[in-house]
Amino acid sequence: MIGAAAGWPLDDRGAAYGDGLFETILVRDGRPRLWDEHLARLARGCHVLGIPMPAEHELAAPLAEAGEGLAVLKLTLTRGSGGRGYRPPADPAPRLRWQLSPFAPQESRWEEGVRIRHCRLRLGIQPLLAGLKHLNRLENVLARAEWSDDAIAEGLLCDSEGRLVEATAMNLFWQRDGQLETPRLARCGVAGTLREALMERLAIAEVDVGPEALLAAEAVWVANSVQGAWPVVRLDAADGQPVGRWSLGPAHRDFQAEAHRLLGYPPPAST
Amino acid sequence: MIGAAAGWPLDDRGAAYGDGLFETILVRDGRPRLWDEHLARLARGCHVLGIPMPAEHELAAPLAEAGEGLAVLKLTLTRGSGGRGYRPPADPAPRLRWQLSPFAPQESRWEEGVRIRHCRLRLGIQPLLAGLKHLNRLENVLARAEWSDDAIAEGLLCDSEGRLVEATAMNLFWQRDGQLETPRLARCGVAGTLREALMERLAIAEVDVGPEALLAAEAVWVANSVQGAWPVVRLDAADGQPVGRWSLGPAHRDFQAEAHRLLGYPPPAST
Repeated sequence: MIGAAAGWPLDDRGAAYGDGLFETILVRDGRPRLWDEHLARLARGCHVLGIPMPAEHELAAPLAEAGEGLAVLKLTLTRGSGGRGYRPPADPAPRLRWQLSPFAPQESRWEEGVRIRHCRLRLGIQPLLAGLKHLNRLENVLARAEWSDDAIAEGLLCDSEGRLVEATAMNLFWQRDGQLETPRLARCGVAGTLREALMERLAIAEVDVGPEALLAAEAVWVANSVQGAWPVVRLDAADGQPVGRWSLGPAHRDFQAEAHRLLGYPPPAST
Repeated sequence: MIGAAAGWPLDDRGAAYGDGLFETILVRDGRPRLWDEHLARLARGCHVLGIPMPAEHELAAPLAEAGEGLAVLKLTLTRGSGGRGYRPPADPAPRLRWQLSPFAPQESRWEEGVRIRHCRLRLGIQPLLAGLKHLNRLENVLARAEWSDDAIAEGLLCDSEGRLVEATAMNLFWQRDGQLETPRLARCGVAGTLREALMERLAIAEVDVGPEALLAAEAVWVANSVQGAWPVVRLDAADGQPVGRWSLGPAHRDFQAEAHRLLGYPPPAST
């Protein structure tokens, strides 16, 4: 991993309170994918948290360090130091750090699909922070700690009122009666950049539904801007009992092809 | 401020996800107040997050750096580095950092009481994390950013279902029909160490109530283990309109005296 040498000072508010934001960006041959969507989400987060948005050239500077091939650039922006306790400083000096790592997608998951499970943890409802990729991610960490079986690729999260939201590190999509759907993220969850880009290109309805909606789905996917789209072939309950199975078909591949076009990944093999 | 020289490495999970815990401890002449309560809360947090609890002598080591007089010791414990994304490492190597700062309590707030307000932000409900002093504190930061008038000492927080929980950095107590009460913290909020110690010594009922309970109170306080207990003389709505006023009386002073005994602060002047 190549990274800016400096870590975080002891008094940084990101380290103290999770008072900041991050973006995880797929980079191919030094060029970022979905850059506009990443900038837009970061800018939304800065607006909500009251952190000045860095200039684009500052955010893009680490790309010069990326060589040929695939890498992931992680940008972390905090409110910096200062303030009295939780109270933010009136004139914050934000702090930006980056990490660049080589990356290879998990192609077998594209081809064969994945098994996922329901998590026990329910996401708290916080409309102020919904959609943002902020640094308060203990819910994701605890949800991901619910299983250690590598055969299970992701875990689904509902909110505290039982609505489907997302997977621990990916967004969730499905097709029901021919209609593409994804959970509305007005109360919690992270609005992924691939999700944003897909919603501009495909007719995807944002819905408030419980997990029973998945049982009526012809196809289900989990997807993000780094891994692409994984078709779901099996869904387990939190206790390990299977509650849904799907056979891969053309609908799976069409959605996947659109996601992979956006990320510069090869089109899926036809099923 | 005296602190361990090192900050946080770029890949520390505390800085990345708020994956850790902290304690803020009042220290007098090198001796911590409510040490057992701080250790107990940290241990509870370690148990819930799955972070190994450091040995007491490691946690106490920074106390040797504190000189005469009052100081605040902040201990921050993270899960350390490692893991794949949100997934915690199977064998975490926790990282402990500390900061020691001189401290002087705000005596005028003890004597004259304080004005507080309701916050607009509602706390998300997350029973798994309720009571813990973890590093995901963006809600507290955003709530504290709602006002900048120094005449307002604290802001009250309700949960997303409208129940009273706490103030942004203090717990909340009141007396109603002669009975001491404090919000139950089963769904969200931080269980303060002074609150724990007071509940062992006084008959304080934990209740699930909305903010209207305060209007029926004879006395209201906000309190924590560093500042002691501030009697509330005025409560404003989020729009600045006053919704409650209290005159200081013997009930205020009795509760305050108990809190200050626990912290080694002088007893309040009689009213």
